[in-house]
This record gives sequence, C-alpha cells and structure tokens, in this order.
Amino acid sequence: MNPAFDPFNRLCPSRTVLDTIADRWAVLTLVALGEGRARFGALRERVDGISPKMLTATLRALEADGLAARIPVAGGVRHVDYELTALGRSAVPAADALVTWARGHTAAVLDARKEIS
Amino acid sequence: MNPAFDPFNRLCPSRTVLDTIADRWAVLTLVALGEGRARFGALRERVDGISPKMLTATLRALEADGLAARIPVAGGVRHVDYELTALGRSAVPAADALVTWARGHTAAVLDARKEIS
Repeated sequence: MNPAFDPFNRLCPSRTVLDTIADRWAVLTLVALGEGRARFGALRERVDGISPKMLTATLRALEADGLAARIPVAGGVRHVDYELTALGRSAVPAADALVTWARGHTAAVLDARKEIS
Repeated sequence: MNPAFDPFNRLCPSRTVLDTIADRWAVLTLVALGEGRARFGALRERVDGISPKMLTATLRALEADGLAARIPVAGGVRHVDYELTALGRSAVPAADALVTWARGHTAAVLDARKEIS
C-alpha cells in the first residue's frame, strides 16, 4: 500500500479509483467476472436488471482503469468475451465483501427499515 | 449468511441493501464513522469534497437501513453526533476493503489509464 494515496482527499487520484469500484454495478460486475470470462449477454443475465447502456458504461470504466479486458472470440464476428485482468482479480475480494455483507445482513436491514417507517 | 438473499437478483431485497453500501459516499462515510462518532461538520471535513446535500442524503440512507444513528449531544441545541450502530460497524470491514484496495492499487490504475489514452 502506498500511504501517499488517500481516497478521503478529493484531489488524490485514488478518489477516482474508488469512484470506479465503489459503485453497485461495478461491484456486481466485478464479482460476476470473477466467476469467469463472459459475453456481454451472459453478464446482462448474471447482473440481473442492469440496462445494456449501464453495463456498457460499467465495462468501459473497468477497462479504462485496467480491471477488465475484451478478448476477441475465435471465429466470432465482432464477438468478444470480457474477462478480468490480474489487477481486476485483485479487486474481487473487496467487491465480494460488500456482496457478502449484503447477503448476510439483509434481514437485519429489513428489520431496521420496519422500525423507522 | 442467508443463502436465500441474492443481490444479483434485482427483485431480492438484498439488492437494495447493496445499493446503500456500494456507493462511493456511503463507503467513505462508513469508514469515517468507523473511526468514531462525529458531528456533521467533522464528517464533511473528513469526507473531503462531499456536498452538504450529499452527506445529508448519505447519512439518511445509512440511518434508514439501521447502519448509523443520530445521538443528541448533551447541552447542544439541535446538535447531534452521528455514530455507527452495531449493524453499521459490521459493514466497516467491507467498506474499508474497497478504500484499502484503492489506496494500494492507484499507481497500477494510473498506469493502465496512460496505456489506454
């Protein structure tokens, strides 16, 4: 870890790195791609409810930051798979931690919502 | 963990739970509050660059989901501290994992951005 980078500082480039991954669609897409390379259509099915436009934007953001890459599929015409780079794979445990927390604490959150409403 | 909850399913309530925490401002605010209870103004300074409106919305979302609570400050007039609940504290490691990943991989992401541009 480089202690010089601090996402709490809005002028630090690490803030823009956090912006890329601390996003619900990026988190789900990272975890989905962590399960293996996939076509656009398969990702759309896995990340249920994501619009084509939002999936495109999410994949482009992950590509721009070096976390995902497009892999031409042999024999395919303009068909590509998406897969994580080594850098992207290193982000999966952090993304998965949020997904796992949501899975494990939804009942408690629903209880809290009932108390407030 | 309840295997019945699946944030990949858009109809599952766990998706809305993920939506609350898989957000850049929520992540920074959770980590900031994980450092201890704080006033609104102190949070604004810690989460550099967040607008008052966005901090208010973020805190309300965390409160609505039972992750944060307002604590009246003795002697204060309408002054409150914000602090995490036990549920909120349980989410800090996951939020911190994203912040820590950003700190540790900003140099690699900046290299990737240079290669692409």
